[in-house]
Amino acid sequence: MEALEAFQLEQGRRMIAWMRDLWSFPRTLTGEGVRQTLAYLQNQLSDLQLHQIPSGTEVFDWTVPNEWTLKSARLVGPEGVVVDASDNLLHVLIHSQPVDQKISLAELQPFLFSLPERPDAIPYVTSYYRSTWGFCMPHRQRESLPEGEYHAVIDAELRPGQMDFADLVIPGESPDEIVFSTYVCHPNLANNELSGPVMAMALAQYVAPLPKRRWTYRFVFVPETIGAVAYLARNLEHMKRHTRAGFILTCVGDERAYSYMPSRWGNTLADRVVRHVIHHHAPETISYSFLQRGSDERQYCSPGADLPFCSLMRSKYGVYPEYHTSDDHFEVVTERGLAGAFDKHVKIISILEANAVYRTTVVGEPQLGKRGLYPQTSTPGAGLAARDLVNLLAHADGTQDLIGICETIGLDAMKALGMVGTLVHHGLLEECPP
Amino acid sequence: MEALEAFQLEQGRRMIAWMRDLWSFPRTLTGEGVRQTLAYLQNQLSDLQLHQIPSGTEVFDWTVPNEWTLKSARLVGPEGVVVDASDNLLHVLIHSQPVDQKISLAELQPFLFSLPERPDAIPYVTSYYRSTWGFCMPHRQRESLPEGEYHAVIDAELRPGQMDFADLVIPGESPDEIVFSTYVCHPNLANNELSGPVMAMALAQYVAPLPKRRWTYRFVFVPETIGAVAYLARNLEHMKRHTRAGFILTCVGDERAYSYMPSRWGNTLADRVVRHVIHHHAPETISYSFLQRGSDERQYCSPGADLPFCSLMRSKYGVYPEYHTSDDHFEVVTERGLAGAFDKHVKIISILEANAVYRTTVVGEPQLGKRGLYPQTSTPGAGLAARDLVNLLAHADGTQDLIGICETIGLDAMKALGMVGTLVHHGLLEECPP
Amino acid sequence: MEALEAFQLEQGRRMIAWMRDLWSFPRTLTGEGVRQTLAYLQNQLSDLQLHQIPSGTEVFDWTVPNEWTLKSARLVGPEGVVVDASDNLLHVLIHSQPVDQKISLAELQPFLFSLPERPDAIPYVTSYYRSTWGFCMPHRQRESLPEGEYHAVIDAELRPGQMDFADLVIPGESPDEIVFSTYVCHPNLANNELSGPVMAMALAQYVAPLPKRRWTYRFVFVPETIGAVAYLARNLEHMKRHTRAGFILTCVGDERAYSYMPSRWGNTLADRVVRHVIHHHAPETISYSFLQRGSDERQYCSPGADLPFCSLMRSKYGVYPEYHTSDDHFEVVTERGLAGAFDKHVKIISILEANAVYRTTVVGEPQLGKRGLYPQTSTPGAGLAARDLVNLLAHADGTQDLIGICETIGLDAMKALGMVGTLVHHGLLEECPP
Repeated sequence: MEALEAFQLEQGRRMIAWMRDLWSFPRTLTGEGVRQTLAYLQNQLSDLQLHQIPSGTEVFDWTVPNEWTLKSARLVGPEGVVVDASDNLLHVLIHSQPVDQKISLAELQPFLFSLPERPDAIPYVTSYYRSTWGFCMPHRQRESLPEGEYHAVIDAELRPGQMDFADLVIPGESPDEIVFSTYVCHPNLANNELSGPVMAMALAQYVAPLPKRRWTYRFVFVPETIGAVAYLARNLEHMKRHTRAGFILTCVGDERAYSYMPSRWGNTLADRVVRHVIHHHAPETISYSFLQRGSDERQYCSPGADLPFCSLMRSKYGVYPEYHTSDDHFEVVTERGLAGAFDKHVKIISILEANAVYRTTVVGEPQLGKRGLYPQTSTPGAGLAARDLVNLLAHADGTQDLIGICETIGLDAMKALGMVGTLVHHGLLEECPP
Repeated sequence: MEALEAFQLEQGRRMIAWMRDLWSFPRTLTGEGVRQTLAYLQNQLSDLQLHQIPSGTEVFDWTVPNEWTLKSARLVGPEGVVVDASDNLLHVLIHSQPVDQKISLAELQPFLFSLPERPDAIPYVTSYYRSTWGFCMPHRQRESLPEGEYHAVIDAELRPGQMDFADLVIPGESPDEIVFSTYVCHPNLANNELSGPVMAMALAQYVAPLPKRRWTYRFVFVPETIGAVAYLARNLEHMKRHTRAGFILTCVGDERAYSYMPSRWGNTLADRVVRHVIHHHAPETISYSFLQRGSDERQYCSPGADLPFCSLMRSKYGVYPEYHTSDDHFEVVTERGLAGAFDKHVKIISILEANAVYRTTVVGEPQLGKRGLYPQTSTPGAGLAARDLVNLLAHADGTQDLIGICETIGLDAMKALGMVGTLVHHGLLEECPP
Repeated sequence: MEALEAFQLEQGRRMIAWMRDLWSFPRTLTGEGVRQTLAYLQNQLSDLQLHQIPSGTEVFDWTVPNEWTLKSARLVGPEGVVVDASDNLLHVLIHSQPVDQKISLAELQPFLFSLPERPDAIPYVTSYYRSTWGFCMPHRQRESLPEGEYHAVIDAELRPGQMDFADLVIPGESPDEIVFSTYVCHPNLANNELSGPVMAMALAQYVAPLPKRRWTYRFVFVPETIGAVAYLARNLEHMKRHTRAGFILTCVGDERAYSYMPSRWGNTLADRVVRHVIHHHAPETISYSFLQRGSDERQYCSPGADLPFCSLMRSKYGVYPEYHTSDDHFEVVTERGLAGAFDKHVKIISILEANAVYRTTVVGEPQLGKRGLYPQTSTPGAGLAARDLVNLLAHADGTQDLIGICETIGLDAMKALGMVGTLVHHGLLEECPP
């Protein structure tokens, strides 16, 4: 079992509590559910900025959709109520058009959605851009529906409104940014939704009080896909100029193995720091191909944007069995699961904060012994203790950053942080100008 | 067994028919056999241009040899005729000097050639640049020769004449060329000679009527080695400027596994398209090293020429057991064998015709759903069908050509051709200027 | 067993004889032992230049230490003499401060050094930069010391003096240099000391009478670490401008497998030639990581110097069981061991002397047959004999040096030397200007 400290576990507890508060808000791409969610976040992150884009606005190749407001959705059969969205919003196909129709079971079938391979779970189904309607239910229930007349009632409105999203910028010494982006548009789903926003909140609250920040931090909360496209449309030039590393926060709450989704070429600073952290602290991580992507790296890493985004998840979307079903709830996401992912992202931040190009200030090996950094009697094996220190110095040639040096010498960058401090203090190492 | 369609099999039949017509022409480096062969080709390819270089002309480091005309060659022993070149031209060492000599079997031995490891076949032996003479026969026959007096008669002339060769240029939109080169200098050999010229004829007849050609096509018919050297001497500057990809057509007629001979560094467009085709359509292909080369890539890929030539063969010269013997005949080369190689070369041409650098026209993922290119209801697995399409878009960043994109996303370029057409039609993809 | 010729074995015998002469000089970082050693070397290498740097001089991050002169060192116990440095200088901790003290065994223990894992050997222990004293002995002896009073007497002086070192420059056509560096500061140690200086002497005597030298050769004899730092401080600019390849000569005397210590990035000319030689002539060589370095590559390869140094050893320092103990004597270092390493270094020199960028002078394959370099009758397999020659020509494109060509075509560069000569003689190959 992953070793975690009290501080991380405490963060896990806080995130679970936030998730319970946020659980019932009826999130879809647009409307009240998103607004309630962002208001809750703003309560925790007072500098969170809220933004809106009117329905119908074109954002790159897309158009901001109408707001969908669901008043009620109920399917009644010969033997009574079959499903009711007030029990679980997943029971209705998200963005269903209004309907009030009595039809036979055979006529109803095309409007029913269920999963034969997971017969007790309600699937999560959406149709944002094509008008239709539908009900979702466990496959076992669907199989047992009797013949007869059904009454499908969906009281919903699709009207021009706005799409809501938010961001939080925490300034650092450099205007260059580390970006975390997450999404707020899935109702009643734990790992593949709420784990992301609560992780972003916890990381923002970790970063904000740091006494010194090398980088500026940007936290982005958007509806998935269309929200990220819109965010890029509003911020593309700024992000292209200033983004040093970006991370999608998604599916960061369960206790299963970690999963790494690279950027398009897998060679950005974001990829390098994630690969370094998983090599040293989560070697069992599953590395996926960019061809298996599925979240907002599809936008941030698209050719026109080409931003350095990757993601370190726990179980990857689309892969774990509860994904996009009513089973993705609090038995999947746990305090320990969130705490572990929090720990890894704090390591990512810590390493990025120390990551610079360093060079030694002397020719030849410095005489570490006179500074108390090397044993002064040459007994056998005496030099091993200082091996990492001399290796770090021997590779600080001004050509690669700290992560690169650590990869070369096989040293965990988390251990190098203190060594760099010591060597800079003794005047043996200096940071090269960017 | 390789899946082939009626069109390819029909080409196989045509090529076999041409081979039967061409079989008996007495081809060597120079002389009537080559002229008869080129005349036959010109009958099928009316725009074929014939060229001649006089004997004695220096071409780079070589000198065009005299013409060799064989009237008759017969070895008679104590028990009658041993071999007669009128039965099979292979019975005489090619370019033998005239001889009319009665000698003992022991004295004759240095002038006899046979293959202990293939005792029933006549070996193919030449001596273009050193004066000698000889007879070739099955080893079993040689072993049974009785002691006694032998009469060796070779009535041949080696006189100044010319070396003949030909080419055919089929213009396209670009003056840059795809080149196919093959050789016409081996008598009575099927895979390691005639499969090449008939494949070139079939490909030329395939390319000529295409409604649109991105590239100009050049088909070259030369005696091997000296002919290719001479062709380079005449066309080097043009070929260095315009050759985008070149292919040696040799040993393309049997039904055994394919063989790939790379260019010197294996990194040219010609190599890339061949490797792509074999990965998707002939994965059992044997990839050889350039160090095992043996045909006219020795000239085209030499440091002074450095042209992008490779070859996709069936059984490689020097490797298959019938190579350079009288067994390399119509039991080795078949309609199916030729049809398969024709199919692969047509795929090479099709991919080269579509190969350009593309880039997407929008930032972020385009909304494929509104164009009917993506399922609009998000049921589980819905996106898989369009996965190749979105991967293609996600990698069309203007930095690599279509083959490169397909390699990155694991897609057969033959499947990508239609997708590129669709995406260009919808304005989502555009070709970058060269 | 490694195949060696009489010439190499004769060198092995000479080196062993030199080692026996040099064995007893009391070498430490500074003082008479080093001066006696350098005087002996100068007797063999008349152009050897001697240099001195006064104690207290700052060289980069280090300060030249005082001279240590030992008159006597003896530990007497209740039952008589325990150890006496006149038996073996290793019995005293090198650079011990003077002491004349009667103490109990318990009080003495912190000043005793021994190796439990090698209980019959005297360890070699130094303390150059911290004032202390001590005695070294076999662990078995130490374990059997009786309780009682001990008298520790070390009559030594640590006074300002000088550090001695030497170099020998043998000029060649180019002012660019091949450098061999070795160290002269360990007393009574065979593999990890004397094998280096005697190998440098033998190589210098091999190089000096060569009729033609492409490169200038520099042989450096310094105390390890501080001596190399000082040598760099005196010669850094010259060495950065002129060093083409450098080699540390250390641990080159035993008969065990060869060991390769790369330069920092493992990509210098020095590394390339060593890897080539071991691939073809010592494939059982153990390749170590630069992270396991331990000799003067620590100085020459440091970021501020960044010189192309690596080393080809026999058993690596720190790894073989006799390292830094009294067991590192003439049972470890042998004539055959030295002869083998001499052979490898002569191959390194031979290849470096021939190593240039070559290009063919003709387009296409040259006609080798007319020059007697290729069989003129095309019998099966006829071309194999000349395969290396045509491969060499086919890759001499002016883009890589001879080592690179040989790596590409899988040819031992020692075999290529003659071919290059032949091809240059025939005007088919020429050297590109640097």
